[in-house]
Amino acid sequence: MALDETQYLKQINSPEDLRKLPPKELIKVCTELRDFIISSVSCNPGHFGASLGVVELTVALHYVFNTPYDKIIWDVGHQAYGHKILTGRRDRFHTNRKYKGISGFPSIFESEYDAFGVGHSSTSISAALGMAVAAQQKGEDRQIVAVIGDGAMTAGLAFEGLNNLAATKANVLVILNDNNMAIDPNVGGFSDYLVDIATSRTYNKLRREVFKALQKFNIGGPRSREMIIKINNSIKTLLTRQTNIFEGFNIRYFGPVDGHDVERLASVLKDLKEIKGPKVLHIITKKGKGFKLAEENQTAWHATGKKFDPHTGRFLEPSSNKPKPPKFQDVFGHTIIELAKQNNKIVGITPAMPTGCSLNLMMQQMPDRAFDVGIAEQHAVTFAAGLAIAGMVPFCNIYSTFMQRAYDQVIHDVALQKLNVVFCLDRGGLVGADGPTHHGAFDLAYFRCIPNMTIASPMDESELRNLMYTAQLPNQGPFAIRYPRGVGSLINWQTPFEEIKIGTGRKLADGQDLAFLTIGPIGVKVARIVEELQEEGITAGHYDMRFVKPLDEALLHEIFSKYKKIITIEDGTIVGGLGTAVLEFMSDNHYYATVHRMGIPDRFIEQGTQTELARDCGFDMESIRNTARKMAKES
Amino acid sequence: MALDETQYLKQINSPEDLRKLPPKELIKVCTELRDFIISSVSCNPGHFGASLGVVELTVALHYVFNTPYDKIIWDVGHQAYGHKILTGRRDRFHTNRKYKGISGFPSIFESEYDAFGVGHSSTSISAALGMAVAAQQKGEDRQIVAVIGDGAMTAGLAFEGLNNLAATKANVLVILNDNNMAIDPNVGGFSDYLVDIATSRTYNKLRREVFKALQKFNIGGPRSREMIIKINNSIKTLLTRQTNIFEGFNIRYFGPVDGHDVERLASVLKDLKEIKGPKVLHIITKKGKGFKLAEENQTAWHATGKKFDPHTGRFLEPSSNKPKPPKFQDVFGHTIIELAKQNNKIVGITPAMPTGCSLNLMMQQMPDRAFDVGIAEQHAVTFAAGLAIAGMVPFCNIYSTFMQRAYDQVIHDVALQKLNVVFCLDRGGLVGADGPTHHGAFDLAYFRCIPNMTIASPMDESELRNLMYTAQLPNQGPFAIRYPRGVGSLINWQTPFEEIKIGTGRKLADGQDLAFLTIGPIGVKVARIVEELQEEGITAGHYDMRFVKPLDEALLHEIFSKYKKIITIEDGTIVGGLGTAVLEFMSDNHYYATVHRMGIPDRFIEQGTQTELARDCGFDMESIRNTARKMAKES
Repeated sequence: MALDETQYLKQINSPEDLRKLPPKELIKVCTELRDFIISSVSCNPGHFGASLGVVELTVALHYVFNTPYDKIIWDVGHQAYGHKILTGRRDRFHTNRKYKGISGFPSIFESEYDAFGVGHSSTSISAALGMAVAAQQKGEDRQIVAVIGDGAMTAGLAFEGLNNLAATKANVLVILNDNNMAIDPNVGGFSDYLVDIATSRTYNKLRREVFKALQKFNIGGPRSREMIIKINNSIKTLLTRQTNIFEGFNIRYFGPVDGHDVERLASVLKDLKEIKGPKVLHIITKKGKGFKLAEENQTAWHATGKKFDPHTGRFLEPSSNKPKPPKFQDVFGHTIIELAKQNNKIVGITPAMPTGCSLNLMMQQMPDRAFDVGIAEQHAVTFAAGLAIAGMVPFCNIYSTFMQRAYDQVIHDVALQKLNVVFCLDRGGLVGADGPTHHGAFDLAYFRCIPNMTIASPMDESELRNLMYTAQLPNQGPFAIRYPRGVGSLINWQTPFEEIKIGTGRKLADGQDLAFLTIGPIGVKVARIVEELQEEGITAGHYDMRFVKPLDEALLHEIFSKYKKIITIEDGTIVGGLGTAVLEFMSDNHYYATVHRMGIPDRFIEQGTQTELARDCGFDMESIRNTARKMAKES
Repeated sequence: MALDETQYLKQINSPEDLRKLPPKELIKVCTELRDFIISSVSCNPGHFGASLGVVELTVALHYVFNTPYDKIIWDVGHQAYGHKILTGRRDRFHTNRKYKGISGFPSIFESEYDAFGVGHSSTSISAALGMAVAAQQKGEDRQIVAVIGDGAMTAGLAFEGLNNLAATKANVLVILNDNNMAIDPNVGGFSDYLVDIATSRTYNKLRREVFKALQKFNIGGPRSREMIIKINNSIKTLLTRQTNIFEGFNIRYFGPVDGHDVERLASVLKDLKEIKGPKVLHIITKKGKGFKLAEENQTAWHATGKKFDPHTGRFLEPSSNKPKPPKFQDVFGHTIIELAKQNNKIVGITPAMPTGCSLNLMMQQMPDRAFDVGIAEQHAVTFAAGLAIAGMVPFCNIYSTFMQRAYDQVIHDVALQKLNVVFCLDRGGLVGADGPTHHGAFDLAYFRCIPNMTIASPMDESELRNLMYTAQLPNQGPFAIRYPRGVGSLINWQTPFEEIKIGTGRKLADGQDLAFLTIGPIGVKVARIVEELQEEGITAGHYDMRFVKPLDEALLHEIFSKYKKIITIEDGTIVGGLGTAVLEFMSDNHYYATVHRMGIPDRFIEQGTQTELARDCGFDMESIRNTARKMAKES
């Protein structure tokens, strides 16, 4: 379908326009909206399955609620494409996730319809409660809706929100979008529980039957009436092996409802609008709905990294036969298996990112030793602490940005007890199109102040392997290995393991004019720059520091004794990271040199390609070269 | 009772000794253990109510389980006094919480019986699951017990642990110690739900009756047998308005049982030992059990700050009539009310610390505008974000050490959206007797790397008031105000409000030889030192920086232009805090000075008085004086 064939969509420039339609035409809006999303994402890759799954819900919500006065919070905002398209951003949607384009997530800076910025999951109930309480305080009759997936419900924050919501009379509608998936299939008791409720085919019929039967059966004498009401409320429990957590919290529960029947959804939402207080609507949807391949392989089609044919689903970019360096995540995924075969104490842990971090490889080969704990970073770390205290060596793989969720557990449960937990921080540094909510900008800084921590970052795949090898040796204590999103630099990366002495860097080039101190894969680029500068007559030393903590003090003494001009470069914040650590060393040891710190500046960085963003931050190759040239000239 | 009157206790040097007794003598052990705790704490203040509440549980657990091979994890370890006394630390118990003494919390470095370090709450289920999985991996038949209070169950981490536990067959016994209290009374849906279960007086009788009755009633034809089993499992639900969250997770639930009947407890635990897989035992206890005043006022007797008469409960230290400066927490508590009367957008939030942070004052006076959200720091912050986005000005008061739990929410929900949330970080810096799990050592460092944050710390009560006033002015963005445990320095602290321009410090003294840059109340001591040094002929400048971020750059230019010797002093880590920020400024602006950073060194600090610990860290008055003298002499 070409975009100009849209009949309804092109007339909808805001939800106001949508609300003019009669209910029975909503289904056509849904068809066009779904086609628009498929068509758009096919030529501009982005998140895919989640937004397709909530097309009908999106249309129904904006149809029934008075947005933007009423507030919709889209938990883990990557499901909000339809919402963006319906709220005035259809014409800009081709810039989705691009540099200077619109964000792939709701953003309060982008539209008044984006009620809350949501990139990390499970925030919606707490935020909705805040908005609802504010409305109460101001005497506003405002509706607040939190749309949360069943995957997001497994995070502690969502539970805390629900627990608090239950204690209020706040006017919050929680829509539980139950598709039994996060990015990978969901895990845990809560997930099983939902499947039970939702798949009970005879559910409604039985409910009625049992209620009638119990009415006749006069149990407990005068208590009977009250009891029957209780029984009715809890009858789902009886019929589903398990119990209803929402009613357990005394929150009114409705559903399950077919989330792809837009007319019915609209009608249910209209009814719910009239019911005051906290309430939950449980809807059943299919991730990837309407695009067969995405329905069939939901994990692969969670987000599309490449352009594809919207009709066949065939990816359009030809895969090259030229050998390419691997992704860092795959080096992790293969290496942990190699190590685990040698060391039976090793186990792997991921909070809901088995595919994203490649622990799925170990989960397939060693299912008893690799754990997907769901969206539960806090648990992932404390669980790892429990394993480590009992003598195991857990590799806990958490994206840098999500590690922020488990900061206390790293300090209190792991570092304080000096436990040998290996934290593999994937997606360290600028991640690209996911933007400000997802950059792993702060990890080196926030880990560096924790006592007992070892913090390392490999320059290439071989170093990643050697750091992983080193980290699992006995009594290494808390050990963080941080690496970025994307590919490395080595074709032949499966090098034999070598121990790297903790706190040792290495000299890659000797020079006279200035020295580069790098951490992580930016070192590969700097190595090239050093050669280029050499041709210009500038000789620069280059040191791959490898460890941000402990610093290689011997190497630093060598560096500061020789160089008076130093450039530190890191794909991370310059407030408190490697460059700052070098300043502390310099001050503590009474050296004086001009130190220029390059890295992520002290602001949130928008989305774009990693290259665009490095330029934006001033540590792309050109900026590094220019800084070095300028510094070399200074007296 | 004098300690030497103990008949049983003095023979119990390890749980082995306890296990030799016949069950019916356990009650006597409990009496002696309780008396010992009362007697000890009466002359050596510490946590009180929680340990009294679990005397019988402690005795029963060590009696039944094969500790230390079997593992007991005491969630929020301040309930573990009885455990410590029974596991070989009776004779050292008078050093509890003292400098170089035994820790007030379980510590793996102190005893093999302390299975896991627990100072922050809600970690036990995740840690227990880790240990249980490790035991599975090693083929060990080891019992793992997590003792968790109903208060601790409200934190997301506990939910994440429970959700994961449910998905395994791990051999974990969760003992839910239900006393309807954390430090203050519990809040939220979960709390209500437990009260319902526990207070159903006719519970057991009805359960039997209903089961029998339903057996006769052949509902649903062939489905009947299965249904009846389900009904029986869920019957608690029917009788208690709400549903059983544990069974909802498909974890076997037992109880409620009287937690003060030690013989019965031992017998139940013995039975449970034989049941494989995850299971929950719900026990009902009374915090402060056996000490009347503590039973009656559980919040006041959660921890005793002073010595008391063990018979009358009368506090022994005479309260002086001399006027004293107030606690910082009380300045917060009174000032927020004053401000809230002027600004109707202000609301207060505390995660389960209303008494500890003095928000209880506002909760009494303005119950609609002050929220205790339970042990739920993550929710506290995201809830605040929701309030702020809707135009309110939330003051979110969280102890520095617990703020670690909400780090991601501060970054992702507040700072990224530039929301005007005021974070009041109570207990910043060394807290004293609570020790390494509770020092607020890292906050300045971990907040400093977050863009958009303002980070301030008042030198005295008046500055605290003015910072609070400043923070609630329009469009101030995320604003952290950090202050310590304990009293300030001003008798007349209720000064009129004055705005403090963000990012401005102030000069307190002019000098020639060196400059002190301080943040927070340590500045009061340094002011005294400056006067003393003057008498010795050393003239020191003194600057109260007030803001760690943004730094007062104008003031720093003045300082670096004038002084070549600088001492920075902060009651916080020297890795990434104020001193480091000053080094970054110095480097960025090409100044060269000798900078000596004083503060908490890069290690975890044990317990002691705040004075003892400052000495241990090298920033007590004597160390500061000596450092200044030494520096002044250097050429």
